[in-house]
Amino acid sequence: MAEVLGAEVIGSPDFVISAPASLNSDEPHGLAFAESPETLEEAMHSNVGAFIVPSSVEDFPKPAMRHPKPRAAFGHLLSLFDRPIFQTPGCHPTAVIHPSVVLGDNISIGAYVVIESGCIIDPGATIMPFCFIGENCKVGAGTVVLPHAVLLRNVTLGTNCEIGPGAILGHAGFGYYWDGTQQARVPQVGNVIIGDNVDIGALTAIDRATAGSTSIGDGNKLDNLVQVAHNVKIGKHGVFASQVGIAGSSTIGARNMAGGQSGYADHVIVGDDVILAGRSGVMGTISDPGIYGGAPCMPMRQYRRVTVIHADLPNFVNRIRALERTVKELEGKD
Amino acid sequence: MAEVLGAEVIGSPDFVISAPASLNSDEPHGLAFAESPETLEEAMHSNVGAFIVPSSVEDFPKPAMRHPKPRAAFGHLLSLFDRPIFQTPGCHPTAVIHPSVVLGDNISIGAYVVIESGCIIDPGATIMPFCFIGENCKVGAGTVVLPHAVLLRNVTLGTNCEIGPGAILGHAGFGYYWDGTQQARVPQVGNVIIGDNVDIGALTAIDRATAGSTSIGDGNKLDNLVQVAHNVKIGKHGVFASQVGIAGSSTIGARNMAGGQSGYADHVIVGDDVILAGRSGVMGTISDPGIYGGAPCMPMRQYRRVTVIHADLPNFVNRIRALERTVKELEGKD
Amino acid sequence: MAEVLGAEVIGSPDFVISAPASLNSDEPHGLAFAESPETLEEAMHSNVGAFIVPSSVEDFPKPAMRHPKPRAAFGHLLSLFDRPIFQTPGCHPTAVIHPSVVLGDNISIGAYVVIESGCIIDPGATIMPFCFIGENCKVGAGTVVLPHAVLLRNVTLGTNCEIGPGAILGHAGFGYYWDGTQQARVPQVGNVIIGDNVDIGALTAIDRATAGSTSIGDGNKLDNLVQVAHNVKIGKHGVFASQVGIAGSSTIGARNMAGGQSGYADHVIVGDDVILAGRSGVMGTISDPGIYGGAPCMPMRQYRRVTVIHADLPNFVNRIRALERTVKELEGKD
Repeated sequence: MAEVLGAEVIGSPDFVISAPASLNSDEPHGLAFAESPETLEEAMHSNVGAFIVPSSVEDFPKPAMRHPKPRAAFGHLLSLFDRPIFQTPGCHPTAVIHPSVVLGDNISIGAYVVIESGCIIDPGATIMPFCFIGENCKVGAGTVVLPHAVLLRNVTLGTNCEIGPGAILGHAGFGYYWDGTQQARVPQVGNVIIGDNVDIGALTAIDRATAGSTSIGDGNKLDNLVQVAHNVKIGKHGVFASQVGIAGSSTIGARNMAGGQSGYADHVIVGDDVILAGRSGVMGTISDPGIYGGAPCMPMRQYRRVTVIHADLPNFVNRIRALERTVKELEGKD
Repeated sequence: MAEVLGAEVIGSPDFVISAPASLNSDEPHGLAFAESPETLEEAMHSNVGAFIVPSSVEDFPKPAMRHPKPRAAFGHLLSLFDRPIFQTPGCHPTAVIHPSVVLGDNISIGAYVVIESGCIIDPGATIMPFCFIGENCKVGAGTVVLPHAVLLRNVTLGTNCEIGPGAILGHAGFGYYWDGTQQARVPQVGNVIIGDNVDIGALTAIDRATAGSTSIGDGNKLDNLVQVAHNVKIGKHGVFASQVGIAGSSTIGARNMAGGQSGYADHVIVGDDVILAGRSGVMGTISDPGIYGGAPCMPMRQYRRVTVIHADLPNFVNRIRALERTVKELEGKD
Repeated sequence: MAEVLGAEVIGSPDFVISAPASLNSDEPHGLAFAESPETLEEAMHSNVGAFIVPSSVEDFPKPAMRHPKPRAAFGHLLSLFDRPIFQTPGCHPTAVIHPSVVLGDNISIGAYVVIESGCIIDPGATIMPFCFIGENCKVGAGTVVLPHAVLLRNVTLGTNCEIGPGAILGHAGFGYYWDGTQQARVPQVGNVIIGDNVDIGALTAIDRATAGSTSIGDGNKLDNLVQVAHNVKIGKHGVFASQVGIAGSSTIGARNMAGGQSGYADHVIVGDDVILAGRSGVMGTISDPGIYGGAPCMPMRQYRRVTVIHADLPNFVNRIRALERTVKELEGKD
């Protein structure tokens, strides 16, 4: 195994590895990795059998192998144990496919899939059971749509995407106006365009545009339970963690990252390379690349300082009161 | 087109419009609208071909049409391009419908729908593929239930509602008590009652009541990924944006609005015409109409002021320190 | 009825009860309960017909029954009106079940269920319509999987669990690294292990581990729209309200509770008996049992104090300004 990973064994090479393991697990025959001083310390007391450690580590009290990049070697190890979900080639007999649908070669359509008129399924695409692909959708080559996902209508997926189970793309944008007696719907006639190599998480919702497109650029990765509202535009290679919400018509640049439960207000404009800590709130334009935190968000350094003071507010109130007393005394003395 | 919208053309009437467009899109033959000075400025530099502008605009550097209410005219334009999802009339042969179900005229039941005993589907209702309609549910006339929605049991929908894809109505309320050795379930024997003209978003959950009803009044609009817990009661014509959460037994008045990711604690009472900024948190009774922000929320004006000070806390801490130094010197001089 | 509940009637025993009711409902023949002075006061003005009140109540202006524990008696009442969802025994003919699947006795498999290879369904389990049970999953004895739930792969459920409608268990963990040109997937080869008597809410997502297990201990109760990321470990008997998010590799002890919309950052460690108020944010280790609030969270007492000061910041700023003026005058006098 060390040979395959390009690593060098410390101690006896006889240790038998059964599977990759996480540092905090309990697998005597697992192989995990540790890189930082903290995780190396933790590794020594872990129940995991063996570790990949940095080349700089001389001694280790457990079976281990040295590698210049333990995390990358561990990723390599994972890929050796990975196995794609098996999908039978062709169309399952229970799939209900409109005669106008264009099906490419080497596709797999699972049980109980419904595909409506005007759809195009490109070569090598996989549509898993219970997916609903509504009118005028396109699934790019090599893209996998996991069970229970919905492309409601007018959704275009690029190549090699993965759409998570239960994700809903192409539902009507949330637009209403008070017509004097009730909230009336603004018709939502636009579409959703997803680039290449985009992964969408489980139970994530991406609404179609009022007019034009809700668009997500190549290489984006969205986690579970994320909301992307109508007419949002996201540049390439972003990473958005779970429960993030992006309100209508916001524009986000390339290589953005957002921690879990962050939110973007509607119509905000965010430049390239902006990173949000978890639970951040973007209320307006962010032009400068960098790390931000808080709601409304601010540069991370400021946020850290503000947070420390915030938790210590009772102390500062006491200091204000003490000042008031002292100043009153000083005034009295005059 | 100007004639249809009741607008007056500025410049040459020969411009060909292909579709409605959003201001920030890139469609040379699109028609968008601009109303405020900011959006009019943005419109001049946009790539969109033509614009609907307010009647007060004299000159415009692009093909344009004047209208007293550009937004309303754009809504009219959208409705001209809108097309309802096509649904085949009748019941798809794969639908599994219990013999006790009462089906009205002119309904459409899609592929792979399951409807359990005791349900009533009123005339003109549409149930799209993969919906599960459990025991004792009622779907009102003209209501559309989008693919993959679940009415688990004891759910009554009014007329002309739209239930979003993947929405789950009627799941058991989240009620447990510690019985000495474990968290034991409180039986949830109530129901869900949805009024007329209510829209429920994708992947939104509305739990049935412990006893009695979880009720959502006529004309409410709920966005995607919203949580409505057991025994919540919402008045008429509210608008609740994505990822809002409403905890158990809270009562919300008429015409409430809540921005994305807002939350209501359990058992709170909120009056009519209360508007929450995004990410607000309601922790207790709100009686006065108005706009609120923050968590716990406060009147918007106060929230704005507090937020500015909050971000500037390091400055105030420095001022406290400076005061302490000066006061110490003054004391020393005495 | 009073006899069944072990309660003592106040006033005439002739009142006819039709159903349990909630305090704020409108049911003249309903029976609700009231325990605290506030709810007893509310009960007197309620439209509900009758009430269960504490034994200490002497007089009550409505039909009522005394019980030492009104809430428990009401729970008993609810259980009398509860009725499990009816499921036909056996396998529905439309279920697509791989020949390798092992089916126990007395199971119920609903319409349009798909079960893939290597699965084990233990005796007395119920799989409702539209569930997708992917490769190598196990459903424990007596467990109920509600409609539209997905066990994607490598998911093990204990006995007597309830998996909510639309819940997604076993999707790939959200792990990516920048490989120089794009965000590349970290293979997710681990599994999900759910203990006994665990309830998972509607539309809740629990990702499988990168390596090893995402594990949720016996007796946990998760509400709707909750996110549990890869490699999270939760001890026994926790209660997690709606829209809570738990980021990757976090470890949470036994008997934790979290209010709605709370979040746990990744890799945090939380001890036993930690309770979070709604919307709390856990950013690091919490060792001491107790109640916490705020984001980043702090002990509840401190949080309450900080929150009061926070809302009152404009006042404190005015006091700082007043001090500055007075101190300046005092300096001038020297």
